Amino acid sequence: MATTEVSLVPVPPAVDDYRTVRDLTEVLAAPLSPEDQTVQSMPDVSPTKWHRAHVTWFFETFVLGPNQPGYQPFHPAFGYLFNSYYETVGERHPRPDRGLITRPGAAEVADYRAHVDAAMVDLLADGPSPEVAALVVLGLHHEQQHQELLLMDIQHVLSINPMAPAYREVEVEPVRASRPLGWVEHPGGLVDVGAVDGDGFTFDNEHPRHREWLEPFAVADRPVTNGEWQDFVDDGGYQRPDLWLSDGWYWVQARDAAAPLYWRDGTEFTLAGEVQRDPARPVVHVSYYEADAFARWADARLPTEAEWEALACDRQEVGRHLDLDRLLPDVGPPGDLGLFGDVWEWTASAYLPYPGFHPAAGAVGEYNGKFMSGQHVLRGGACVTPAGHTRRTYRNFFPPAAQWAYSGVRLARDADKQELAR
Amino acid sequence: MATTEVSLVPVPPAVDDYRTVRDLTEVLAAPLSPEDQTVQSMPDVSPTKWHRAHVTWFFETFVLGPNQPGYQPFHPAFGYLFNSYYETVGERHPRPDRGLITRPGAAEVADYRAHVDAAMVDLLADGPSPEVAALVVLGLHHEQQHQELLLMDIQHVLSINPMAPAYREVEVEPVRASRPLGWVEHPGGLVDVGAVDGDGFTFDNEHPRHREWLEPFAVADRPVTNGEWQDFVDDGGYQRPDLWLSDGWYWVQARDAAAPLYWRDGTEFTLAGEVQRDPARPVVHVSYYEADAFARWADARLPTEAEWEALACDRQEVGRHLDLDRLLPDVGPPGDLGLFGDVWEWTASAYLPYPGFHPAAGAVGEYNGKFMSGQHVLRGGACVTPAGHTRRTYRNFFPPAAQWAYSGVRLARDADKQELAR
Amino acid sequence: MATTEVSLVPVPPAVDDYRTVRDLTEVLAAPLSPEDQTVQSMPDVSPTKWHRAHVTWFFETFVLGPNQPGYQPFHPAFGYLFNSYYETVGERHPRPDRGLITRPGAAEVADYRAHVDAAMVDLLADGPSPEVAALVVLGLHHEQQHQELLLMDIQHVLSINPMAPAYREVEVEPVRASRPLGWVEHPGGLVDVGAVDGDGFTFDNEHPRHREWLEPFAVADRPVTNGEWQDFVDDGGYQRPDLWLSDGWYWVQARDAAAPLYWRDGTEFTLAGEVQRDPARPVVHVSYYEADAFARWADARLPTEAEWEALACDRQEVGRHLDLDRLLPDVGPPGDLGLFGDVWEWTASAYLPYPGFHPAAGAVGEYNGKFMSGQHVLRGGACVTPAGHTRRTYRNFFPPAAQWAYSGVRLARDADKQELAR
Amino acid sequence: MATTEVSLVPVPPAVDDYRTVRDLTEVLAAPLSPEDQTVQSMPDVSPTKWHRAHVTWFFETFVLGPNQPGYQPFHPAFGYLFNSYYETVGERHPRPDRGLITRPGAAEVADYRAHVDAAMVDLLADGPSPEVAALVVLGLHHEQQHQELLLMDIQHVLSINPMAPAYREVEVEPVRASRPLGWVEHPGGLVDVGAVDGDGFTFDNEHPRHREWLEPFAVADRPVTNGEWQDFVDDGGYQRPDLWLSDGWYWVQARDAAAPLYWRDGTEFTLAGEVQRDPARPVVHVSYYEADAFARWADARLPTEAEWEALACDRQEVGRHLDLDRLLPDVGPPGDLGLFGDVWEWTASAYLPYPGFHPAAGAVGEYNGKFMSGQHVLRGGACVTPAGHTRRTYRNFFPPAAQWAYSGVRLARDADKQELAR
Repeated sequence: MATTEVSLVPVPPAVDDYRTVRDLTEVLAAPLSPEDQTVQSMPDVSPTKWHRAHVTWFFETFVLGPNQPGYQPFHPAFGYLFNSYYETVGERHPRPDRGLITRPGAAEVADYRAHVDAAMVDLLADGPSPEVAALVVLGLHHEQQHQELLLMDIQHVLSINPMAPAYREVEVEPVRASRPLGWVEHPGGLVDVGAVDGDGFTFDNEHPRHREWLEPFAVADRPVTNGEWQDFVDDGGYQRPDLWLSDGWYWVQARDAAAPLYWRDGTEFTLAGEVQRDPARPVVHVSYYEADAFARWADARLPTEAEWEALACDRQEVGRHLDLDRLLPDVGPPGDLGLFGDVWEWTASAYLPYPGFHPAAGAVGEYNGKFMSGQHVLRGGACVTPAGHTRRTYRNFFPPAAQWAYSGVRLARDADKQELAR
Repeated sequence: MATTEVSLVPVPPAVDDYRTVRDLTEVLAAPLSPEDQTVQSMPDVSPTKWHRAHVTWFFETFVLGPNQPGYQPFHPAFGYLFNSYYETVGERHPRPDRGLITRPGAAEVADYRAHVDAAMVDLLADGPSPEVAALVVLGLHHEQQHQELLLMDIQHVLSINPMAPAYREVEVEPVRASRPLGWVEHPGGLVDVGAVDGDGFTFDNEHPRHREWLEPFAVADRPVTNGEWQDFVDDGGYQRPDLWLSDGWYWVQARDAAAPLYWRDGTEFTLAGEVQRDPARPVVHVSYYEADAFARWADARLPTEAEWEALACDRQEVGRHLDLDRLLPDVGPPGDLGLFGDVWEWTASAYLPYPGFHPAAGAVGEYNGKFMSGQHVLRGGACVTPAGHTRRTYRNFFPPAAQWAYSGVRLARDADKQELAR
Repeated sequence: MATTEVSLVPVPPAVDDYRTVRDLTEVLAAPLSPEDQTVQSMPDVSPTKWHRAHVTWFFETFVLGPNQPGYQPFHPAFGYLFNSYYETVGERHPRPDRGLITRPGAAEVADYRAHVDAAMVDLLADGPSPEVAALVVLGLHHEQQHQELLLMDIQHVLSINPMAPAYREVEVEPVRASRPLGWVEHPGGLVDVGAVDGDGFTFDNEHPRHREWLEPFAVADRPVTNGEWQDFVDDGGYQRPDLWLSDGWYWVQARDAAAPLYWRDGTEFTLAGEVQRDPARPVVHVSYYEADAFARWADARLPTEAEWEALACDRQEVGRHLDLDRLLPDVGPPGDLGLFGDVWEWTASAYLPYPGFHPAAGAVGEYNGKFMSGQHVLRGGACVTPAGHTRRTYRNFFPPAAQWAYSGVRLARDADKQELAR
Repeated sequence: MATTEVSLVPVPPAVDDYRTVRDLTEVLAAPLSPEDQTVQSMPDVSPTKWHRAHVTWFFETFVLGPNQPGYQPFHPAFGYLFNSYYETVGERHPRPDRGLITRPGAAEVADYRAHVDAAMVDLLADGPSPEVAALVVLGLHHEQQHQELLLMDIQHVLSINPMAPAYREVEVEPVRASRPLGWVEHPGGLVDVGAVDGDGFTFDNEHPRHREWLEPFAVADRPVTNGEWQDFVDDGGYQRPDLWLSDGWYWVQARDAAAPLYWRDGTEFTLAGEVQRDPARPVVHVSYYEADAFARWADARLPTEAEWEALACDRQEVGRHLDLDRLLPDVGPPGDLGLFGDVWEWTASAYLPYPGFHPAAGAVGEYNGKFMSGQHVLRGGACVTPAGHTRRTYRNFFPPAAQWAYSGVRLARDADKQELAR
């Protein structure tokens, strides 16, 4: 069952596009019991039913409430319970306590969704103003982000269970033929970075388009694999402080870290349950600290986001995105760099505003800008990202210690380095 | 719907008695959704479905496994997941993480219960040995304890929810006519404390029966009420360090404690939801620290457990126990001291072994003895205790900071004190 | 250099007695540098200069301030800095931050002491009222308690240092001839417990004298030794949960506890530095949890404080107390039970008020009573307790996890047990 | 007493230069008692005597040990005690426990310094190799950094004391005439950033020199003042989440932050004690979160480090550095931007490696590179920075929550903004 790529560019969105995105959320939740949908296995994780309700609250709060005359909120307490982090629209339930809320249950959340969808369909049928239409499009992209979070989060919830249950029973196929790492060079120079205004939907953090100067560099032609990571482990990678940032070494010691998050003895835990670890599969669920240490061990480094974008800007966006029949990352055929989909790629760049950046006006201005400290940018999308959601200029971001995202590694090096010495 | 008192004395128990106790657990869980049954709102709390599975595991592990040839455990992982604290029988899932386990879900736990019940009924039908029968009786008393815990715990889970949902919609009736506090005197002397051997089921911690010397004392003829507690609050009870134990004062400051656990503005949160606070109703959900401070404020003290038992030993055991149609504590008519049922009564006694105490042999020896430090004894039973579960010699115990039990206060004083000066 | 026993009974105390006690504090601090006197190595520990100032503050606050007309406090901030826990006399510096205060320094504390001593000598010369004289006596006993604390605390401070410096270089002599454990029996019955009014100085917590009923019991004729403890260790004592209270087992796991506090490889760290561990020397620096587990392993138990006192009440108070030339505990000759001095002996009794207890009036009522929860009683005194400070009815107390006191173990058993089976 | 600027460029350094730097450390420690020198008031702070010993250990470990035949380390334990973070040279004492070590005391540290200085003077007299000489120069710059840290740290230690003692009694003069904020423009373009090879001493993190593209921008002509910060406070700056980064807002709430670190009612705590707050004085001891929020409130932003350096590159390095007779920051006359000295200036730039960066070889490679995550760059130097220590390309760095450094704020804006609207 492949999920269909949706084009969310047109403003206003068609009712069908709205429904397609909204439906996918329910498809993703379908394999999960009410119990599965309730639990928060760590503060970073949100319960499935919270995700389903929060994305609905987004439409209710930012679209229907201010713009649909006579709209009645589904429940007076939901504004408090399902606000994530928007200070502007009022108090909210503490994030670490989301897993303590048993009611509304999964079924009542479905009612909430139906209530909001009915009003949204009316609103869309009425032909909303461009401003309202833009908020709807934003809400759909927001929901796609939570679709990926929903999968990341439920994988963590299930991973806590000693019985290691699968999110979905899927036949896991071996990775296409493994291939040695090659390098793709770029001459550097003055490059343009960031999204072009008016060219379809983009987030505010992709703007403004601006210039950066790059020295010549090279980037690996595929992500790092499980097999290469095993070499790092076997070489004592997690025991050598010289390979690690200082913060990273503290992180290793505090967690007794010795492998990617879901590695177990010969296997890895995935949405398809515990499976044999395929040495040719891209490594995933590594922190920035791990990615940085691996790159140092490999006598390489991580690319900056400008380098990544410069390389990606004239490549076709092919890649393996969310597909419920194939839940693991893969590697494409020779010539396919795998920049898009499969695994997010940590960059060396801190998540900071672009020169001249200004957040969007109003409450949605809190969407991106206020998170611009203490995080690193990841690029490209993953096998749990809905198709069509990302683009060349898309900036994902996580704190350097985060492992539960679909984060992997692409190596880079300065152009004068002759080869990846190991 | 009143619950029926079960006599668990006969060894071996009748199949009907087994079923009556087991069925009550499911009756108590019936109003709760799968989501409700999954959450652990603080480390002291266990999820409803965990309680339902754990009491089942008790029969599987201590009765069926060793004594029923050919018995097949329901699931190989359940021994790990549902062992509470029995070091003797192996590793177990960490207590604070019980609320992170989504599978087995509530329905699968019902299957587990049915599987074990079928085997237990066979075993009981076969006429078990006295040793095995004694374990069955212990298992049923154990399940009754968890019935009370299940209610305490779900009340806490629901209390966390800003919507304050009721466990069960019940008509809350006002307390019978309030009456002024009177005192009942006891001459003291050498008294017998503890259970008589062979006189029905008792826990090991009620043994051996032994002598204690008491000075003359008096005990209040009813528990402290909400109205009296409000006087304490209004008199600055939570702001005066001179009234508190040192540990208690730290507890007050660390929690910003200013009232019993579930008091809200004019109301209290109960299993019946948020209800008006009845000044004549016994106060409940207070910690030992609070009980002790209140008694000091009232120029009184808490009774010791020997005093309590000396007073109770020749009184009839009437009282208000678990009744799903009446979920709140009450006060009896004049002459009814309310020693049994309604609210557990904190005593001044630390929970320590009686002189000559020896725990039961084998794994069930971990049942009581190893908790004999850092706790205080409570006596009498509460409105959430199954009828017939407690007795005059019954020793309940909680840490001094615990509030979520149905813990209330009965005042005592040395006999030469003339009156409760306030 | 043996310290002289002071009789603090007479009211009012002679100036010489006042000086003798006060001088000993400075003798104890003399080997310590300003740096040594400043540090707080854990929240339970107080810096040496804090002890020296606090005991001085006690006289300034409770004796001089209210009773010596025209007395000028040495420094306006010292009332805040050196109040330990007396809520009645105002705000105070947080206990865990005592080691962050660099000024006043050790020398200025000496000035503070001289200032108060001069005023105190004047006051004593004037012939204070009995009430004031009683406060002076209390202040001297208080200072003796802090002399022991000062030594306990500095031992912990020095133990943290990887260079393991000695508090004082002392020739450590081997323990007198080791002897096998014997038992002393007591018939039980109705015994008197607590101090007799008017019979010299006592603390309020030793009152009122009252009756307790005891079953026949036996008590070991000497404390447990290092050698016996080594047997416990070698037998896996710290790896067997069945030997431990539940709280104790958590304590073992949280601390990775595997030996008494100051045991190192073949040695123990003492006030005389790191010395060879003498198997015949009484074990010291064990928690209540360890004492309880050891007793269970030895098929014995700890005595209650009433048992201890019943045994001690007709024995002569001989024992080895504070002597700067001999800083380690010892064992007396056959016939000397060692009840007094050498090591404090954990009892099975929680620290609770005696029947009819009332704390002293006024601020000094906070001295003892408010600590009556969460602790266990120790009896007898130790080799760091000033001679003459303790008595048969003296009740020391510490939380069950505390190890840094001079706490050891005396075994007891019910009288019908025939022998200490091992 | 003005401190003399030392030129540390020549390789090998003259003995006099070595002595000048080393002596200043002891001058800075001179006003501090042994108690003052022992305490660590928070994990970020190190005790004065630790600083004095650690900078000495640097010479012993990296210069004398490998290069001075026959050199005897002063004490075998000091390598463990005074290693800060160099994993390469072995185990080390835990950083948060530095304040628990009482021995060696302040006097013994002086002996340690003398021992090492004697050997160092011999080594310098012998004419060391260029490699060794470079390590000596690095050690002297390292000691200068710790001179500033020593002052920052002791200020925090003294600030904890309710008596608010001064580090040094200094006459605090009012700031030169206050002046309105003006702006200095820069046209942007392709600029060179980083140190030129061979042009005197620089740290590895200032290399390699590289190009960056800048858009036109403007920078304020003086730092933000106390008076302007007071306006921010009065305008509810600490109560408005819309002004803050998300991490910053958590920081505000967790600390109840409401002002710069050392602000008190109308005063600020300084090395000269508690002084009246001068509205014209540069604000200091603010975190990155505060600086960023202030800038947003002022409709401005922080400069990037490349912008700062582009502006500074053709300005003369005048400024107010460490002067024991004038311990507070100041503002220069019109025309003096105050880029150098007075207060460090937070930049918007995360502390990351420059393109092509490689850490120095060997153990000193741990000096800078491994800290390149989770921090922000500060530029310019402060009134506690030894004169001559910094330069235009110098990169200081602290975590965004740090307040105890001499960190202040210089505003920037995009060039097309017309004025600082408030």
